[in-house]
Amino acid sequence: MNRPYPPPVHADLALSITQRFLEEELRKTGFRRFVVGLSGGVDSALSCALAVRAVGPEAVLAVKMPYRTSDPRSEQDADSVLSLLGVPSERVDITPMVDAYFAGRDEATPLRRGNHMARTRMAVLFDLSARERALVLGTSNKTELLLGYGTWYGDMASSLNPIGDLYKTQVWQLARHLGLPDPVVTKAPSADLWKGQTDEAEMGLTYAEADAILYLLVDERCTMEETASAAGVPLDRVAKVLRMIEASQFKRRLPVICKLSHRTIGIDFRYPRDWGR
Amino acid sequence: MNRPYPPPVHADLALSITQRFLEEELRKTGFRRFVVGLSGGVDSALSCALAVRAVGPEAVLAVKMPYRTSDPRSEQDADSVLSLLGVPSERVDITPMVDAYFAGRDEATPLRRGNHMARTRMAVLFDLSARERALVLGTSNKTELLLGYGTWYGDMASSLNPIGDLYKTQVWQLARHLGLPDPVVTKAPSADLWKGQTDEAEMGLTYAEADAILYLLVDERCTMEETASAAGVPLDRVAKVLRMIEASQFKRRLPVICKLSHRTIGIDFRYPRDWGR
Repeated sequence: MNRPYPPPVHADLALSITQRFLEEELRKTGFRRFVVGLSGGVDSALSCALAVRAVGPEAVLAVKMPYRTSDPRSEQDADSVLSLLGVPSERVDITPMVDAYFAGRDEATPLRRGNHMARTRMAVLFDLSARERALVLGTSNKTELLLGYGTWYGDMASSLNPIGDLYKTQVWQLARHLGLPDPVVTKAPSADLWKGQTDEAEMGLTYAEADAILYLLVDERCTMEETASAAGVPLDRVAKVLRMIEASQFKRRLPVICKLSHRTIGIDFRYPRDWGR
Repeated sequence: MNRPYPPPVHADLALSITQRFLEEELRKTGFRRFVVGLSGGVDSALSCALAVRAVGPEAVLAVKMPYRTSDPRSEQDADSVLSLLGVPSERVDITPMVDAYFAGRDEATPLRRGNHMARTRMAVLFDLSARERALVLGTSNKTELLLGYGTWYGDMASSLNPIGDLYKTQVWQLARHLGLPDPVVTKAPSADLWKGQTDEAEMGLTYAEADAILYLLVDERCTMEETASAAGVPLDRVAKVLRMIEASQFKRRLPVICKLSHRTIGIDFRYPRDWGR
């Protein structure tokens, strides 16, 4: 079924907004470069391409961080993005760090291992950003962020995120628009944490379905019934998506601080400029 | 000089509020346990003690995570807290993970190494929290959080933080009130990232000074001049603290997302209950 939700992005406008966003964040922070982890998937490829449009390839460092079980095709796909964009890159094998931790922890589930890999990659990216005096680009899209399909303080952590307000289907659209390599755009999205893993099988939802439901619920503030009817899906699919949003709300927040004063960080204290300095 | 700012905490009230906070967060999330990294310092000792008051020692796991350069007295101090509180503990030496990453990166500064160690510890705590079906307790106090004296996505990351609204001098007060071991309360605070490091030397401020200035600026919304006068410090000390707050504002936020829709995560989309479900 071809659903009209979410509507296609106005590509030129989105490109111009993301470009100014990236330029302005560099200007405000005084940094000149970006660091981005390149997985071989479409999200990080798009983030990287947007950074290249904003500051040129020489001001971007793409980092490949394979683990010993990563599909070699992921790295080939990342390489095809690197060639296309002409971006300098670095390769950091995370196997020694990850295996050093899990030695003697044979009971660790694939989910625990996957989350630890994501956090290890985050730590590598932030370290390289300190070396490069650069900002770490986020690569989580709006679908993943709303469904909580990502690792808190792992791949969900970054300095700033140019694609976090784009649903996955909109990421595909922009990636095609920018001429990113076909295999990167058309392959089944996967966190590549184990063989044969795909996002859609793991979530129990296709991205087309998830995006339509999320767009109607979140952006259009439809009721569950309106969403089911407009998206052409059964009500229990909508309920499932809503539960996923609610269950992952903590990942879209800072740690909750126990309120003990009348001015608490993250609650009443947010904006230094409040003081009218 | 004995400054009246910040005022002492009402200890019994603070203990009762933090206890209910911790109980309620467990109830809301369906977890039953807490995991906390115990450094040997007063902040993590207090977090751990508050958790023990709320759920008893058996529902808390304290994790010691030394690095090969850590001062052995830090672990002794952590052990004294463990004995006093009767909390089960685990020891994870982070040396193999950290050294695996920095092998061949001899240029890495102490600051980069320290930040990487903090992120590695965060990843360990969250992994153990998944194993234990537990929440990770934060151990950053209000002074550190406001000055940005901590690692973004490292020690500043947690599931929830019982002491994030207490200034360092208030942490000391509560720690004494709870009878935590004297060496833990009286020693010079240090991140223990290199030999002889102390927070106060590194920040160029004593905690007594920092807390007075922060309390007047943030909690009392005083002007810089009022703050300098009430705290009895020169105006340039106040200006320095203000600059530290502003320069670290990004650490007290989620990654900024480029706004491309009319409902953006972290900007207009915050509360799932907005929908009136």
